[in-house]
Amino acid sequence: MMHAPMIHAIVVTQFTKMLNNLGAILGEAEKYAAEKKFDPAILLQSRLSPDQFSLAQQIRTACDTAKLGAARLAGREKDAPVHADTEQTLAEIRARLESVTAYLKGFSPDAFAQSAERRITQPRWNGKSLSGQEFLVQHVLPNFYFHVTTAYAILRHNGVGIGKRNFLGDMPYREAAAA
Amino acid sequence: MMHAPMIHAIVVTQFTKMLNNLGAILGEAEKYAAEKKFDPAILLQSRLSPDQFSLAQQIRTACDTAKLGAARLAGREKDAPVHADTEQTLAEIRARLESVTAYLKGFSPDAFAQSAERRITQPRWNGKSLSGQEFLVQHVLPNFYFHVTTAYAILRHNGVGIGKRNFLGDMPYREAAAA
Repeated sequence: MMHAPMIHAIVVTQFTKMLNNLGAILGEAEKYAAEKKFDPAILLQSRLSPDQFSLAQQIRTACDTAKLGAARLAGREKDAPVHADTEQTLAEIRARLESVTAYLKGFSPDAFAQSAERRITQPRWNGKSLSGQEFLVQHVLPNFYFHVTTAYAILRHNGVGIGKRNFLGDMPYREAAAA
Repeated sequence: MMHAPMIHAIVVTQFTKMLNNLGAILGEAEKYAAEKKFDPAILLQSRLSPDQFSLAQQIRTACDTAKLGAARLAGREKDAPVHADTEQTLAEIRARLESVTAYLKGFSPDAFAQSAERRITQPRWNGKSLSGQEFLVQHVLPNFYFHVTTAYAILRHNGVGIGKRNFLGDMPYREAAAA
């Protein structure tokens, strides 16, 4: 039980915040496309290198990392929504983001009570496993931020007017006087 | 004390791993520069957008996020090494990475016993503060991975032959038979 509140804060609360930030960043991309008069779906096919994932695939993978990260840590992989990876428009990509944040709402901190010690595997690991803490710290966190950051970087590289604040979102600062 | 072992696993063990992965990625960049016969320091001045940090500055900032993240969480900001942000060569950037990983070695899990509840501030916040958990989850983690991923993305965009495995590093998989 020891780490459950922090695991929840990371994979539910913070990943939801980051996926919402990504939705807002896509709104900036849409404005930029309208100003420059091009189809925003072109951005979804953009990439930083020809053999790297496109923006659409970066966002799909960020979504899956959050969804399956929470599901596997909680031992609830069977209830995770299935996505077909066929999104081609901003509206479809937004629906994917919203499906995942809705799914994450279903996890309370208690859902992660056994997570740190659980043995976790996934199909491509051929039966090998990580502890829940290893999975969270060495796999889920770096992969999630890798794909969210690369999505941001593709848009930034293409001229969308976003900055680090769009990436991080608001901070729950407490004013000095109230400290 | 509750979250101290996980905080240590994130900001000491995992951040050290990621900074070492970044050092290995710089090794691939150096090989690529030698093959193509250009000065690898050119890569340190590369960026994805003219108003974004260069590779050198991305790495410096990743280093500072790890160093000051651990220092502030542990209430030990005064003992953090100071870096002048003047690195221009791969050797100088590597020295920066090594200075930070050496510093992180000085933190035991006990150093983070009070971290989750500690009020944390930094100069640019004008006296405002975050709790230690907010600082770790909403500030240190996204910032650290933002800069490490962007460093990777700059090199990937410039043709260096790296992939996700270079970014993530080795996983401590347990074989199925031993599970």
